[in-house]
Amino acid sequence: MVKSNTLDPFSLHKEDVDTFISNSDNYIIRKGGDMKGFFQESADPDKLIYEVYEIRGPHSTDMGLTIMKPGKVGKEFHMTKGHFHESKSADEYYFCLSGKGMIIMQSEDDEIRHMPLNEGGGVYVPSGWAHRTINVGDEDFILLAIFPKDAGHDYGAIEDKGFRSIVMEVDGQPQVIDNPSF
Amino acid sequence: MVKSNTLDPFSLHKEDVDTFISNSDNYIIRKGGDMKGFFQESADPDKLIYEVYEIRGPHSTDMGLTIMKPGKVGKEFHMTKGHFHESKSADEYYFCLSGKGMIIMQSEDDEIRHMPLNEGGGVYVPSGWAHRTINVGDEDFILLAIFPKDAGHDYGAIEDKGFRSIVMEVDGQPQVIDNPSF
Repeated sequence: MVKSNTLDPFSLHKEDVDTFISNSDNYIIRKGGDMKGFFQESADPDKLIYEVYEIRGPHSTDMGLTIMKPGKVGKEFHMTKGHFHESKSADEYYFCLSGKGMIIMQSEDDEIRHMPLNEGGGVYVPSGWAHRTINVGDEDFILLAIFPKDAGHDYGAIEDKGFRSIVMEVDGQPQVIDNPSF
Repeated sequence: MVKSNTLDPFSLHKEDVDTFISNSDNYIIRKGGDMKGFFQESADPDKLIYEVYEIRGPHSTDMGLTIMKPGKVGKEFHMTKGHFHESKSADEYYFCLSGKGMIIMQSEDDEIRHMPLNEGGGVYVPSGWAHRTINVGDEDFILLAIFPKDAGHDYGAIEDKGFRSIVMEVDGQPQVIDNPSF
């Protein structure tokens, strides 16, 4: 599918995840040890939290496929590190191909939004909003991201500041806690 | 949601179609009379084939939501006109929020591809491929398109040449017919 300087049409249904992976040209893995300071409690350094497979084509946009394992670190559900884009015009789309999740977005002015991200649906993230996805279900949360080629990923700014909300299990259910005191 | 020179985060699930429509800033309607020469038989000029609602934000990408009525003109299923992009780097994504459809893509070298486009899934269309979507189901086919702001829509080139394949009902089922002789 990925040829030098070209890219053929391809399908992006739930059944196509293995094909996407086999054609990806970049791979990121995040285990507990890669996410020190992101959760309230320390994660087992060898525990797989999520993987990202990217297809970087020759055209205007790139794609990332995130597969996030179900589970928690302490009472917090598995989540991505979260990032801003370096480009001030770079927006992003997330579509959930499988599983049950959420997205938390935080603007440069610290405004915060959270939305469900469920199988068959998506969310639009304008530029200027840091975003983090969270698996609140019992299965792999499989997420397709679409972003402009020049987006750039800035993990540092939001890592330093932190998101103002976290997603914890409370009475067996996922709950968004704003301004947690820790 | 759409403010001057800004765009808030928003959800893109099946349940959000009405919100998308109420926030759109451009509207296109195609009735049978707007699609003379696209189907083998003449369509009733007043018959609604599809509508497109667009949200053109201040960032890198724009969105279009197509709602295509179920039905046929003669034996051909309802479809869009189809277009190339003017920009040679502009790729596009389609996600089906509801219904059952297909996409036909034809390269500048007349290579042809067809793929299902079913609820919860998508298709990636690289630049250089004209594309047309088709409702092969019994319900509204609701489709979200994502494309770079500079994509531009070139309907003329593929209208002059025509797609090499059509989608017809054969024995009660949708069937792709290559190189139809008419």
